Parts: sequence; structure tokens; C-alpha cells
Amino acid sequence: MQAINFKPIGVIHSSFKSVDNMPIQPVGAKNVKAVIELYHEFEEGLKDLDGFSHITLIYYLHKVVDFKLQVMPFLDIETHGIFATRSPLRPNAIGLSTVKLIKIENNFLYIENADMLDGTPLLDIKPFFAQFDNRENSKSGWLDRRWKEKNRKLISDDRFK
Amino acid sequence: MQAINFKPIGVIHSSFKSVDNMPIQPVGAKNVKAVIELYHEFEEGLKDLDGFSHITLIYYLHKVVDFKLQVMPFLDIETHGIFATRSPLRPNAIGLSTVKLIKIENNFLYIENADMLDGTPLLDIKPFFAQFDNRENSKSGWLDRRWKEKNRKLISDDRFK
Repeated sequence: MQAINFKPIGVIHSSFKSVDNMPIQPVGAKNVKAVIELYHEFEEGLKDLDGFSHITLIYYLHKVVDFKLQVMPFLDIETHGIFATRSPLRPNAIGLSTVKLIKIENNFLYIENADMLDGTPLLDIKPFFAQFDNRENSKSGWLDRRWKEKNRKLISDDRFK
Repeated sequence: MQAINFKPIGVIHSSFKSVDNMPIQPVGAKNVKAVIELYHEFEEGLKDLDGFSHITLIYYLHKVVDFKLQVMPFLDIETHGIFATRSPLRPNAIGLSTVKLIKIENNFLYIENADMLDGTPLLDIKPFFAQFDNRENSKSGWLDRRWKEKNRKLISDDRFK
């Protein structure tokens, strides 16, 4: 299997300096602000992005050093296959978050609901489009079951450190 | 900027051998079936994924040889910044599709609404969860405007060949 090489197109500046007490998913990061610094050479690629209220970020989980095929995710007390969770300990440490786009100034994008670590290398920005990206009537196995419990929390603990 | 290396975790088998007449996004690929062959070494990571009706695939757009910062996407006749489109000609050739998961047999995943080329290297599988992934009240600039037009088409032409 040949390696596939990507290069960061920018870096995400956020207030999360370590994985302690990180929010879980953008839904756990309501109103949390961050700034994307897109490298100057890509700035021209932002044309018309300001018409979008949400963008989907694909990024490198740069603090992850190894992967596990089965994990006990923050939201559960049972183990699941890594591909049935959003845990960062994935074979390819790729993160995916849809965030609110507040404004763009030159090569800086101001975002909200940001659940990334400070210094996260950005790989791609995709415009969110409900007709492409929302799904109705989806079923989500163990996540559906856990989500209904009252005392679920959307803050990390130290299990992935 | 240092390169980031990923390795394929599997390969997507589909009926699309070239980009001619490819569907645009899973929404343009209704009922189109495909099979994911996850490499054996990762099979253990599928535990409990069968409870999910939808999965989000992150993959390498392996036929893309170069990128453009501004493109005229299939759905429009004006140019937009690459990050305001879902065009494959991105600085990092990363594809993102949420597809229906029909069944899992050992290391094979049978999917529907698949808009990928045959032989596409798979990088990650994330379970779709409406509470994490759906967004209400989103605005999508030029895409909102074009989507309302009656004669939009969801099939590719040759402009990205």
C-alpha cells in the first residue's frame, strides 16, 4: 500500500492547548470561537465562500500518535470498532467537523462551534450544503441509545491521552 | 510545510471506470451500489458499525493530477473559489461522501448512493450521526441559487478531465 501525501493548506488557532476537557464534536462546542489561517497561496480559493453559513473542515489530528481498532468512546462504557466511533485514535488520523462560518477577512476565517486543538493542520475546506450533506431518517446504533441518556456529557476525559 | 502521510485502509469497487457521466455527490447517485473492501488488518474496527444506516467516507481522489484555486463547477456557469465548491481539483485531493450502509460481510461493506470512481483508495470511515452531522438553517450562497433552477443536472461532464 503506497503512502498518500497531503500538505497543510493552513492552521487552526483555537483556545484548546491540550485534549483535556476538549468539547466532543462541534455540537459540544457551541459558540466556541476559533480562527483558521489559510496560507496565503490558497487565498484565491476562498472566492464566494462567504455566502455559506457552515463549512466542513478536514484536518490532521496532529497529536494522535497511534491507533486502536477498538475503543471505548467518551459517550459510552463499552468498546466499539474505531469506525463505529468518532474517536481520534484512527488508522488515518483525519478529523472532520462542520462549523459555523462567521466571517472571512483576507486569508483568515472566523468560525464558531470549533472542536479542534490549537495548531491543527488544515487539509481541506468544503462548503456545507444541506441538500448534499444532511440525511433524514438515519439510524445510529449505539450512539442513538447513548444519546437518549440524560447524563451523557460532551466533554472529553483522559482516556485518549 | 511538512507532508502528512496516510495509507489506504481499503479500496472502493464501483461501476464508474472514468469520470465521464459520474454522478455528482451521493444525492446524484441514488441507488447506485458499490462495495468497500476494507483491508483485513482493519476488520476488527468494524465492530458495531452494522447498527448505522449511513457512513461518511473520506477517500483519496486518486485520478486528480493537479489543482485549481478557482473552478467552474458542474452546477454553475460562473467560477468560484475551489473551497466554495465540491470540485475534485482541490489542493489536497480528498473526497467526502455520506452513503447508505446496506450490510457488512466480514471485511466487505455494501453501500448505496456511491459517487466514487472504481479503485478509489479509502482513508477513513466515520459513523454518521444526525445529532453531530446534520445542520438546520444553513445558507449556501451560489449553491442555494443554482439548486432552485429547474434544469440543473447531477451528472458530470468533461470539464475536470
